[in-house]
Amino acid sequence: MADAENLRPAVTARRALLSYGALVGIPVAATALIVVAIGYPGTAAPHAAASGANTTYRILAALALVTAGAGGAGVLARRLGQPRVVGEIAAGVLLGPSVLGALAPGVQHWLLPPEVLPVLSALGQIGVSLFMFTVGLELSVGTLRSNGLTASALIGHSGIALPFLAGVVAAVTLPASYRPPGASTAPYVLFMGLSLSITAVPVLARVLAEEGLLRTGLGTLAMASAGVADVTAWCLLALVLAVARGGSLLGAAVTVGWVALFALVVWYGLRPLLARWLDPARPDTPLAMARTATIVLVSVLLCALATERIGVHALFGAVAAGLAMPRTAAVRQITWRIEGLTTWLLLPSFFMTVGLSTRLGTVGGATGWLCCGAVLLAAAAGKFVGTLVPARLMRFDWRSSAQLGAMMNCRGLTELIILNTGLAAGLLSRGLFAMMVVMALVTTAMTSPLLRLFGHRRPRQPAAGAAPECAPPG
Amino acid sequence: MADAENLRPAVTARRALLSYGALVGIPVAATALIVVAIGYPGTAAPHAAASGANTTYRILAALALVTAGAGGAGVLARRLGQPRVVGEIAAGVLLGPSVLGALAPGVQHWLLPPEVLPVLSALGQIGVSLFMFTVGLELSVGTLRSNGLTASALIGHSGIALPFLAGVVAAVTLPASYRPPGASTAPYVLFMGLSLSITAVPVLARVLAEEGLLRTGLGTLAMASAGVADVTAWCLLALVLAVARGGSLLGAAVTVGWVALFALVVWYGLRPLLARWLDPARPDTPLAMARTATIVLVSVLLCALATERIGVHALFGAVAAGLAMPRTAAVRQITWRIEGLTTWLLLPSFFMTVGLSTRLGTVGGATGWLCCGAVLLAAAAGKFVGTLVPARLMRFDWRSSAQLGAMMNCRGLTELIILNTGLAAGLLSRGLFAMMVVMALVTTAMTSPLLRLFGHRRPRQPAAGAAPECAPPG
Repeated sequence: MADAENLRPAVTARRALLSYGALVGIPVAATALIVVAIGYPGTAAPHAAASGANTTYRILAALALVTAGAGGAGVLARRLGQPRVVGEIAAGVLLGPSVLGALAPGVQHWLLPPEVLPVLSALGQIGVSLFMFTVGLELSVGTLRSNGLTASALIGHSGIALPFLAGVVAAVTLPASYRPPGASTAPYVLFMGLSLSITAVPVLARVLAEEGLLRTGLGTLAMASAGVADVTAWCLLALVLAVARGGSLLGAAVTVGWVALFALVVWYGLRPLLARWLDPARPDTPLAMARTATIVLVSVLLCALATERIGVHALFGAVAAGLAMPRTAAVRQITWRIEGLTTWLLLPSFFMTVGLSTRLGTVGGATGWLCCGAVLLAAAAGKFVGTLVPARLMRFDWRSSAQLGAMMNCRGLTELIILNTGLAAGLLSRGLFAMMVVMALVTTAMTSPLLRLFGHRRPRQPAAGAAPECAPPG
Repeated sequence: MADAENLRPAVTARRALLSYGALVGIPVAATALIVVAIGYPGTAAPHAAASGANTTYRILAALALVTAGAGGAGVLARRLGQPRVVGEIAAGVLLGPSVLGALAPGVQHWLLPPEVLPVLSALGQIGVSLFMFTVGLELSVGTLRSNGLTASALIGHSGIALPFLAGVVAAVTLPASYRPPGASTAPYVLFMGLSLSITAVPVLARVLAEEGLLRTGLGTLAMASAGVADVTAWCLLALVLAVARGGSLLGAAVTVGWVALFALVVWYGLRPLLARWLDPARPDTPLAMARTATIVLVSVLLCALATERIGVHALFGAVAAGLAMPRTAAVRQITWRIEGLTTWLLLPSFFMTVGLSTRLGTVGGATGWLCCGAVLLAAAAGKFVGTLVPARLMRFDWRSSAQLGAMMNCRGLTELIILNTGLAAGLLSRGLFAMMVVMALVTTAMTSPLLRLFGHRRPRQPAAGAAPECAPPG
């Protein structure tokens, strides 16, 4: 059979040129003749670019800004010894109406015009769902159990109960102007309690890895306690949203019933099905990978829309899908690839929508900032004391107990997701929302300095086995 | 220092239970008291879920449908011996107004209500930009040169010139009812020429890999020729859009000047900068990877918005960013991760928007379908003859020449991107758009059967080194 390599030398440059002239030149000349014959330029008015073009341009510009802002601020935060998420949250607030919008409203409006907000918001919601799916996949009931369920349950629950009470007291004593208009009292008060008692598992894991603490006994206990606290907090959020949605105890009970039914269907229906469909014995071909990716993504999206439909936020379904997914090599690889755009593009869009909703001006003058300080103190002190005391009762020394308290005070991204849900459900006023975003930012940024204050020395070399996340030299 | 492992045995179950009761029970009881004291259920009316919640739910539902449809149809297409993209395009058309919308308009409207279209469209546009970035990264001027630039330029350009002429003739002879209202004649005629002369490099690569032809002399020549044809076609599209946008020769010249300036800035400004910023000697830490990912994504988005702003579609900027990017291990890994969600979620959204824009009813009766057949014949015959003749002139035997012709006739995703651009720019009427989508689908699906008709036997085992993409057994 004739082959390209064998034939090329046999054709002279002259022959190739002549062929090119004939085969390309003649049709091009004919085309030109026709275009000239039909009259160029056309007599019709120049057709403007479609209306969608301007939107595409603005969306690309907003995404470039969001990605650059979050990425740059995240790297900067790491250089300053902070977890990346602190920079990402701060970037959203800085680019939002609070800072950039206050300094240069024209620039802010030009960079992030209203027409891109629905797209940013949708990207952010997809990002939160996909991110919570990866969190669910990481959560492992087995690991939790093997790390001392009693100790982690005691520390996790005590670390929720005390700040929850502090939040309820804060909600009752705050000036009435911060109360969200139209919300019932009970859901609002409960939501405030909940939003003071969050611990963020993924951010805590990053901080512990950076501090070389992830594989130590104390770090493992902190992660297990945070896991217990996180699961409990999500259940409480579902309950609060059910109360808010149902309006009455009966309505709440119906929603809780739906959630329970959903959990049963996922655990006893979807989980075995997924285990069968995603059998690790299947060959590792690209087609099999595409099939696995489709099954994973569709499961996440369907579970997310089920809980969103029930009325308790898409993220619960996404976490449930993560918990129900078999941990095969193929699923892990696909999750790792999903995590890429989720971290770089979709979650920054979420941070940006949070930043755009945050109006620091609505905190309101000196009194407002005093209230903000009080809320911050209640959140941090509640979490700290609520962790320190059970740790002491479990016979940890003072230093370890204080370090545990500092770790559990890390709120990060989880707090923002909860706050955003509360804002969307009408359980937070703008002013409270802004306060709470400040609180989330400050408590997350406190974690590393507090650990050092309580005598932890960051190792020169990250602990073996820990995911090192240090800045490159220079 | 006290450690979790050392301490756990020292604490009795009784002590833990008592601690739990005190530390968790008391705050919970206090919270309950406060909530009851302020009066539960609240007196305010139950607060309805925020208006955004319904949209989130609908977007998640649409994405689940799109992902499941494209993924399922893609796997099915592979089982039928077709490239995946044939199934993905078909799924978009089937779920659009042409089939599902005609059979069950209520179901179609419920599954894909109008409010999700802007989000699907934005996701699709982002997907096309990211996908074209990966195509640009794969395109390598070096490989092209080493594979016989003369032969591939002759075959590539001849394979464009003839179908281009056929398209121009078709545009002039088609009934006036298919002409897009308001468009100038010259851009419309040129656009028709262009849209008949596309060869899709990425889909061709997949088909050749499946047929075990990718590493053969003939396959390499086909890929190089398709590369030449692709680059030429994109340049022509830029020119046609410039003509359409400028309205006059002067306006077109200005746009072409901007494009040339953009290309110069990317090649001589951005490329050296990226090479310096993305130095492969940097350590491979997660922070460095995050930094690299931010630089890659922001470059793609900025380049895409620059060309979109100039008026020649975001994808050119994305391809340019891919060409300008250094091919380091870190960039390849990040691109591979970006490709994940792009293939599984974003491109299916693009296929869905194409499907939603395709109204097969607008082709219009028997005459319309005759016209559609004529366009299909002109596209396939133009491409086939335009490739076969130069291959014969280069002294390939008849069988190899015919196989080359069959390969270059593969249009796939590239054709759809061009058609969608034309529809958005007002250069295609709905009827013509539907015709051309059918043409793209049929010519892509023809590739493998034509190869077999011209004597190619698919190997039992995929050729070594080729990316196998065969269905798992059973």
